[in-house]
Amino acid sequence: MRQVAILGIGQIKVDEHWDLSLRELGGNAAFAAMHDAGTDKVDALFVGNMLSPMVSAQNQLGAFFSDWIGLWNQESVKVEAACASGAAAFRAGLMAVAAGEIESALIVGVEKMTDKAGHDVTAALATAADADYEVEQGISFVGINALIMRRYMHEYGWKHEDFAPFSINAHANAMSNPFARLHEKITVEKFEKSSMVATPVNLLDASPTGDGAAAAIIVPAEKVASLKGKPKITVAGSASATDSIAVHSRKDPLFLNAAYLSSQRAYEMANVEARDIDVFELHDAFSIMSALSLEACGYAERGQGVRLGLDNEICLTGRVPICTRGGLKARGHPVGATGMYQIVEIVQQLRGECDKTQVDGAKIGMAQNIGGSGATILTHILKAE
Amino acid sequence: MRQVAILGIGQIKVDEHWDLSLRELGGNAAFAAMHDAGTDKVDALFVGNMLSPMVSAQNQLGAFFSDWIGLWNQESVKVEAACASGAAAFRAGLMAVAAGEIESALIVGVEKMTDKAGHDVTAALATAADADYEVEQGISFVGINALIMRRYMHEYGWKHEDFAPFSINAHANAMSNPFARLHEKITVEKFEKSSMVATPVNLLDASPTGDGAAAAIIVPAEKVASLKGKPKITVAGSASATDSIAVHSRKDPLFLNAAYLSSQRAYEMANVEARDIDVFELHDAFSIMSALSLEACGYAERGQGVRLGLDNEICLTGRVPICTRGGLKARGHPVGATGMYQIVEIVQQLRGECDKTQVDGAKIGMAQNIGGSGATILTHILKAE
Repeated sequence: MRQVAILGIGQIKVDEHWDLSLRELGGNAAFAAMHDAGTDKVDALFVGNMLSPMVSAQNQLGAFFSDWIGLWNQESVKVEAACASGAAAFRAGLMAVAAGEIESALIVGVEKMTDKAGHDVTAALATAADADYEVEQGISFVGINALIMRRYMHEYGWKHEDFAPFSINAHANAMSNPFARLHEKITVEKFEKSSMVATPVNLLDASPTGDGAAAAIIVPAEKVASLKGKPKITVAGSASATDSIAVHSRKDPLFLNAAYLSSQRAYEMANVEARDIDVFELHDAFSIMSALSLEACGYAERGQGVRLGLDNEICLTGRVPICTRGGLKARGHPVGATGMYQIVEIVQQLRGECDKTQVDGAKIGMAQNIGGSGATILTHILKAE
Repeated sequence: MRQVAILGIGQIKVDEHWDLSLRELGGNAAFAAMHDAGTDKVDALFVGNMLSPMVSAQNQLGAFFSDWIGLWNQESVKVEAACASGAAAFRAGLMAVAAGEIESALIVGVEKMTDKAGHDVTAALATAADADYEVEQGISFVGINALIMRRYMHEYGWKHEDFAPFSINAHANAMSNPFARLHEKITVEKFEKSSMVATPVNLLDASPTGDGAAAAIIVPAEKVASLKGKPKITVAGSASATDSIAVHSRKDPLFLNAAYLSSQRAYEMANVEARDIDVFELHDAFSIMSALSLEACGYAERGQGVRLGLDNEICLTGRVPICTRGGLKARGHPVGATGMYQIVEIVQQLRGECDKTQVDGAKIGMAQNIGGSGATILTHILKAE
């Protein structure tokens, strides 16, 4: 594969955008990426989205957005892997450019979630789980994560409040991110008093959904030998792995095997180890997922991911800074767009554009995007040169 | 890009498979392809599907099928481009192998359509069109095609019965295809007396939907230097192009510009011209689409595609044999699976396995898959060596 670099990024605020259609959400992020890249010409468009068939009665988002953005005639396609759709679209674009088939790709992760009633969205999100063997039993997606968290607390003896640092860190970091949905500092007390959603997952364990879109333009690395004033950011590692879609089929429901496999493959490809990563945007859809991701990626022993939060290792000056722009928890989780927000945020860190949440001297960043309760997991490693 | 070859193919009969789940449909085609290829090891899975979120409440079909097929840990993803999802998944797999990122890919096109009531499926199919500007007005997908056909008849002076040869040819060719949904010869009289669906599209202008799945395994061409007794089949051309999603936004609603662009790019990549194609599996979702595809791909002047049917040029011994296994019209149109049926059928022709509908000496075949009313169109050219 030839090496690929990121030429531009764009995003919109995660919010309830009742004044913006699906077209406008994705289009605005795409236009921002084009503006940042200084070009409106790309060879192909890859769209990451999960819910539009169900929430917006719209399929074929490739052609749909090519049309709106003004990329008529160009190749375009939608990629879906539940909440990992954003990273999956990024990887599809990456392989097309790496193959030499195209010279540039625009990747847009987009999701419109607030046009439907909550129960409709809950049902739509449940399509990430196994319809026959999980959802048929009446469990929601939050419910599945609650079962995992409860088991984890039982197996390893953690209390609910031990998870608080994940949410507190995310909310604190979101304060200076204008694109974040939530701008509200929280405390352990607030965390513990938050409304219960599905025991033991309460409202502050769970990420808020929302409307959002984030985008990037990629090109062969040799074409961006000199970027004025900005470091050249290359995709050093990219990998995707899967696990059984139903949690009950996994050998160990408390180990994210696809996170382990995809991070190992990405480390190898990028020629780095876990400790070399300066900033890690992980998939904290629920606080339990932060712990499991850190363990699977080599930052903690099994059952000890929670300790990294308690020991302050996940903050900006810690061993592994996570959710530096708010994470899913506070930036928000517009599901099919999330993977692209993570990529965009890593680029911001490597460019040194993160203001109050800048990780000093960040040169290597990792983004990990999870589909379902761990069935599809993609890991990308970006490097600044 | 490195050259890619097709190692194995598999398909199941298009039918109302009330006894087979979504899992089993796709799985059975995948297992057939693995059996044909003589391997059960592949690096990655690419799934083409359009309707499963709406009809089966199931997303994340990549992990879903990896799990069922036994490809745990492997990369997998779903690709969606409405009725062109099958070919779009094939192209995504092709680029991943061509990039050198993976050494083999299994591509499965799959659709389960008969578990829902007809009006639900009609609504789900309408998501291929523009939700805001077409479907919102109350038009169905058949309705859009009816408008195009009516305009074509008005502009070029054709009568409805002039379209009969397309359906008659498809039905005749399906007679010896065990995987075809319909096994019933039709005549001009039957064609003209068929029930009206949306004037002027009647039941025999329209392809039947159904449950179905078709699959292929691809590998780098240099790895299949010697296939016992079978010709080596390579992917000589692959291209995708888009047009505006709403028909009313096109400069000319009677010209499939994305078919023109993607076929031109594929011809160029394969270093062939239209006349070099020995067999052409086109996207005859409606009889009007056969005429428009033939025109866009260079087989007829504008408005004269119908003439190829009347002049017997589309039959097995004609200038451009189409729908040699029944086409969408008689083999059936399980929407997201159709593109992979076309690839499988071209491979069957190039291998000389088509029995009564074998095109003598077929060496170069083309498959063209259309999403929506022409918004996403992919063209693939396969060659036998």
